[in-house]
Amino acid sequence: MPLFARTTTPTLERLRRAPADLAEVLAARTPAAVTLWLGSTPTDEVDAQVAALDRRELTQLADVLTPESASRLMDRLEPHTAGMLLDAVPAPTAAGLLGLLPEDEASRVVRTLDADVAARVLASLPNAQSALLRGLLAWPEESAASWMRPAYLHVDQDARVADALAAARRDPDCADEGVYVDRRPVHAHAFSDEAALLGWIPLRALVVADPDAPVTGVMVARDELRGWSVSALADQEHVLRAADDSPDGVVPVLEDGVLLGVITRDGVQSIREEEGDEDAALQGGTSPLGRPYLQASPWRLWRARAPWLAVLFLAEMYTGTVLRAFEDELSHVVALAFFIPLLIGTGGNVGTQITTTLIRAMGSEGLRARDLVRVVWKESRTGVLLGLSMAAMGAARAWTLGVGGPVILTVALSLAAIVLWASLIAAVLPLILRRIGIDPAVVSSPMIATIVDGTGLMIYFTIARAVAL
Amino acid sequence: MPLFARTTTPTLERLRRAPADLAEVLAARTPAAVTLWLGSTPTDEVDAQVAALDRRELTQLADVLTPESASRLMDRLEPHTAGMLLDAVPAPTAAGLLGLLPEDEASRVVRTLDADVAARVLASLPNAQSALLRGLLAWPEESAASWMRPAYLHVDQDARVADALAAARRDPDCADEGVYVDRRPVHAHAFSDEAALLGWIPLRALVVADPDAPVTGVMVARDELRGWSVSALADQEHVLRAADDSPDGVVPVLEDGVLLGVITRDGVQSIREEEGDEDAALQGGTSPLGRPYLQASPWRLWRARAPWLAVLFLAEMYTGTVLRAFEDELSHVVALAFFIPLLIGTGGNVGTQITTTLIRAMGSEGLRARDLVRVVWKESRTGVLLGLSMAAMGAARAWTLGVGGPVILTVALSLAAIVLWASLIAAVLPLILRRIGIDPAVVSSPMIATIVDGTGLMIYFTIARAVAL
Repeated sequence: MPLFARTTTPTLERLRRAPADLAEVLAARTPAAVTLWLGSTPTDEVDAQVAALDRRELTQLADVLTPESASRLMDRLEPHTAGMLLDAVPAPTAAGLLGLLPEDEASRVVRTLDADVAARVLASLPNAQSALLRGLLAWPEESAASWMRPAYLHVDQDARVADALAAARRDPDCADEGVYVDRRPVHAHAFSDEAALLGWIPLRALVVADPDAPVTGVMVARDELRGWSVSALADQEHVLRAADDSPDGVVPVLEDGVLLGVITRDGVQSIREEEGDEDAALQGGTSPLGRPYLQASPWRLWRARAPWLAVLFLAEMYTGTVLRAFEDELSHVVALAFFIPLLIGTGGNVGTQITTTLIRAMGSEGLRARDLVRVVWKESRTGVLLGLSMAAMGAARAWTLGVGGPVILTVALSLAAIVLWASLIAAVLPLILRRIGIDPAVVSSPMIATIVDGTGLMIYFTIARAVAL
Repeated sequence: MPLFARTTTPTLERLRRAPADLAEVLAARTPAAVTLWLGSTPTDEVDAQVAALDRRELTQLADVLTPESASRLMDRLEPHTAGMLLDAVPAPTAAGLLGLLPEDEASRVVRTLDADVAARVLASLPNAQSALLRGLLAWPEESAASWMRPAYLHVDQDARVADALAAARRDPDCADEGVYVDRRPVHAHAFSDEAALLGWIPLRALVVADPDAPVTGVMVARDELRGWSVSALADQEHVLRAADDSPDGVVPVLEDGVLLGVITRDGVQSIREEEGDEDAALQGGTSPLGRPYLQASPWRLWRARAPWLAVLFLAEMYTGTVLRAFEDELSHVVALAFFIPLLIGTGGNVGTQITTTLIRAMGSEGLRARDLVRVVWKESRTGVLLGLSMAAMGAARAWTLGVGGPVILTVALSLAAIVLWASLIAAVLPLILRRIGIDPAVVSSPMIATIVDGTGLMIYFTIARAVAL
């Protein structure tokens, strides 16, 4: 029995002639063209091309889908793109497309829909399916339970490996997550007759084990399983840490010893991407869009960016105050102004290099606040090396601008001091923030540059005053 | 037959009393303490704590390892940390520890060792193992083949599913990658009697299929498999794209239709982390360290950072030229200098927000150069919104500094113009670079800030002149 729907697999010759663009496929208006396009286009391209369609084109696409190509297509779309497609077609068609996805993926698509569209689509689904979906949608967004697939394979504690194999054969779609062993309580309690989880048989063990062996001898026991399971309301970062420890990358969701569902490898990968999006956005001094870039309106982009810009603007405002305080020096030696962007820019660059490295190391190398002293010691020495290098370049640049000895000296000393100062600030800030419970990714390049700008100016003009300009 | 080494699994009670710190474990000097520590410490913590040890402590750790705890420990260490451990112990011990890892992971550890240490360790390995490792090490770093596991399960085309199951039972360590179906050529060629790949049976299919069925009826055929396989010298990004399309996340390495090895899910995850490190470093305006942060010396940090700082410094130098060109305006109205950091800082911040978003979207959402017009149109409208918002804030700030009407007007107009200008530059640059084959991640925050700084100053002083200061 083949596991993967094998439609007309394009051979190399046909791939070369395959339409590369979805627009051409829609112009052809034949189901075969869609199948060919799906077979010859990488996954992220499929999503990008569908996301670029307007509502009329989306309905045209839905019209030429066969059950097979619809399933392949839905499988490759990101939740937001699938949501756009469902939004464009009549509710019964949308329900049919949604029904092609497993519950966990379907629930993520429904979460992208407007409330009234979601209600219509859910109402068009068969009762059992819509009840399962509503259950999943009730969990708060970003909770572990909102990512789980509620269906999983299970056998009871008296079963043999052959029974677990039979369970996997009945429902192969769940086989990748393995077979769970549970026990129904002998005395049903008043409020619960839910099954307590006893252990887990990974897919590999099903293949390798003797079919006559009792499952309890093959399973990974509950105590060990706890090392990589999460509670229903655990946050996403917690799920990722559990997945790293899970031998198959699959994360069970447990509540009071009862298995509620399983986060699949695909689910873990989706969480990883979402967390990556959030970190990248914070590091770029903006908020995550929560949807693909091409589907975000200018208004939404404005809302993601303007608050951060405003905060940075307010923080940067004191550079004006600093400069006004040194108005006398500035009007006396206008040449000092020539080096303002260069000096504060270099300080910001050094700070950015360090915070980027530290934030990455905190995420993937287990760097923690307890390492603060080592980090500061390492960055001070590096800061001295970099400060001296930059001072030499600064002196050369000041000389080419013909600004005279005192300004050259001021620029060189200031660069060395600013680079060292930026190194220390950047070394300390991410670790301290993590310690007090703030995501260190907020120390973005714009943030560290802003912090260094004003203090760098103070260093610059203080040195200028000391050099007696 | 249990699949996972189950040593003394710590229960919750014991976890609470478990030593949290490896230093305490080493002080105890008992194998049981190591086992307990391994059982109660998350994977990334294990690595970070071992990486923090000095050579003497590493040998102490090696002394108290049991075969079981050694295997668990090696499994959890990053290649560089494992390399430190091997470097600290005698070659035969190092070879013993290395032998606990599958070939692909072992080769990554060996790649971190100095050449003479690597030679000693390889010489201490059994011949068969060292020959396999040497073969892997011969592939260039970052090539797909350097990441593959050369061992895989295979049956020939006449086999039945039961034969594939038997193959998996003989070598369960390779079962996660599935069973491959190949054909030996009937007439052995002069230079090659290697087997041509015909198809692949995923682990799940082994469980689900009828054991008496011929493998050719169950397997995923070669043509489809090609969609997510790579050639031996393919680069790492190519492997990641293939893994996204692979149903089990496993990537076969094919050369002339012959299967050389398989990149496992763990291997794909390692590549993903390495590529993530590279992107993060570039985005932070620095080079990747190629090793964990805490293991990098100040000298190495200097080498990763100084060239980028120097490039940025050279690029930023023309701000001095611009400012000198407007020396008359500056000495006439010193107040203009007060707003230099605020104006160019805001321009850089807007540019950073946009490039970060675009680079992320190019990586994970399939945004391409063909979308340039849509991106520019979207960012122009957003730029107008943001420019107006910032102009209002800028006017308010200039008013509080008491600089007079003309300067207030200049600041407000300049902010609007600089924000729009930065938006356009940042929208165009990453897509153009990708088109001409340069990794767009080089448009880091420091880079875009540098580009915007000088041009922003020109806009500012040109407007100042027009307002007739």
